[in-house]
Amino acid sequence: MTPNFNTEWLELLQDTICAGLEAVDGEAQFHEDVWERDAGGGGRTRILTGGAIFERAGVNWSKVHGDLGEAFSRELPGEGRSFMASGVSLVLHPKSPMIPTVHANVRMIQKGDASWCGGGMDLTPYYLVEEDAAHFHHVLRTTCDGFDPDWHPRFKQWCDQYFYLPHRGEARGIGGLFFDWLGVDVSTCAASLRERNPLAVQQPVPYDQALAFTQKVGAAFLDAYIPIVERRRDDPWGDEERRFQLIRRGRYVEFNLLYDRGTQFGLRTGGRAESILMSLPPEVRWVYDEESGMGTREAALLDVIRNPKEW
Amino acid sequence: MTPNFNTEWLELLQDTICAGLEAVDGEAQFHEDVWERDAGGGGRTRILTGGAIFERAGVNWSKVHGDLGEAFSRELPGEGRSFMASGVSLVLHPKSPMIPTVHANVRMIQKGDASWCGGGMDLTPYYLVEEDAAHFHHVLRTTCDGFDPDWHPRFKQWCDQYFYLPHRGEARGIGGLFFDWLGVDVSTCAASLRERNPLAVQQPVPYDQALAFTQKVGAAFLDAYIPIVERRRDDPWGDEERRFQLIRRGRYVEFNLLYDRGTQFGLRTGGRAESILMSLPPEVRWVYDEESGMGTREAALLDVIRNPKEW
Repeated sequence: MTPNFNTEWLELLQDTICAGLEAVDGEAQFHEDVWERDAGGGGRTRILTGGAIFERAGVNWSKVHGDLGEAFSRELPGEGRSFMASGVSLVLHPKSPMIPTVHANVRMIQKGDASWCGGGMDLTPYYLVEEDAAHFHHVLRTTCDGFDPDWHPRFKQWCDQYFYLPHRGEARGIGGLFFDWLGVDVSTCAASLRERNPLAVQQPVPYDQALAFTQKVGAAFLDAYIPIVERRRDDPWGDEERRFQLIRRGRYVEFNLLYDRGTQFGLRTGGRAESILMSLPPEVRWVYDEESGMGTREAALLDVIRNPKEW
Repeated sequence: MTPNFNTEWLELLQDTICAGLEAVDGEAQFHEDVWERDAGGGGRTRILTGGAIFERAGVNWSKVHGDLGEAFSRELPGEGRSFMASGVSLVLHPKSPMIPTVHANVRMIQKGDASWCGGGMDLTPYYLVEEDAAHFHHVLRTTCDGFDPDWHPRFKQWCDQYFYLPHRGEARGIGGLFFDWLGVDVSTCAASLRERNPLAVQQPVPYDQALAFTQKVGAAFLDAYIPIVERRRDDPWGDEERRFQLIRRGRYVEFNLLYDRGTQFGLRTGGRAESILMSLPPEVRWVYDEESGMGTREAALLDVIRNPKEW
């Protein structure tokens, strides 16, 4: 392990986020599973279930190493196939349909002489409150603008493109940030990978700056999300709102299993299925022809995710 | 359209199966949606929901034509890229956890001068009754043996290989039949496709025989499934059995979205999402570390799907 692959900040980030979520939930605590990966490394999966706020919250830390598959390895910068990766990944499914689901991830990767960072976060509301969406995007914009004014529009657009369900013609939610290969010269990536990700920063960013940015994104998570929980936690809801939430959660499942590269890569490379699939909602419904008879507040969300807007 | 691409039997099969299912349900009727496909053709989706037996039953007939993608087209027999396909596809999700979920599909395809058939059916019980599993496989074996004694072991094994979740180390259920490219000379398929499907019948089968077999498989569906419904419909169940059913349904979703080639092909080629995803269960649960505290009847199912057996 090289000196600059220090992952202590990620372990601390997992601790900080779990403490913040337990504090806002006020009832349930995280349960921890420590696991090892056969091919190298391991992780700590923390799950909170049946809380006052969170129906299920999963916050996973992992640090793995080994050899990438040949085809995938050829697309990435750095010599050889051996890699090291560490990250924190979380998905929170609140019980109340009035509180949005949220996903966040930060990660650092090293392969040969190349090191880079990636990550992001995105919000999936069921009942849209413009003030909340504006707050979430505002925190992310402020985080980005401290580094480069080009990054927020770029990483927001990347997020909108990534979290998209073509078969539904819908975004997964109202977006956020998505970035990857920050800190490495992307011109050393294969053309195939660059073509699929035209929004990667083209001018090489010093690795130290990429790492500092990724740490700020991780640290911004609680600021971006907790105020929304506090504002919505006492909003009333009933069967109708719950039904809509369960149907919309079906879209979350569709995205994660059909399109999410992290999920597919993890499952196909022998990752721990229970830790990867903690992203799936605890309870889900699929209803045929669900939109007949839907109310106006539900239609308002569909309008926004089918016609992305600037916040 | 060539004279031998007569799909009337498929429309009749949809009618027969829907009538049989309405009769056994006794309460709910199918609702029909007729749709057209932008790129050519269309179909009839029939959905029954909230029945006495079926929480949701979907029986879809379609007849589509157009041009296949270049890469996929090159793998298949027959000149050119234009194709014609028609089939009946069904997935039944009973309300009672004591009645198995079932999937069946029969289809005929024509491309250039090549014509072939495919299909199969497979059973996904929650609480395993050996007598039911034996009955299902017996009907399928009898259907196959009328054509070729090699086919049942071959198509049963193909089914076990196809409906498998590598990330769980589990079969989707207790199998059945799966066959494809019957009626065409598979040596004219690309090597890549033959390598992925070593169980295809290697000696060319006359197309008329392939079609007759596929029709028999379609006709065998009600015989294979309805007696199981009749035997289990009055078996008692409660919250514990329902919970296990909802968790196991999650595996059904995982298979269909992560691995099922039909689902992925349909969604990526602009198929009607609501008709393709009618295969997903109406209500589903994902529970982290679900096996802790599971009972012996639940463990018995897990044992069978992790260690396939001969019925």
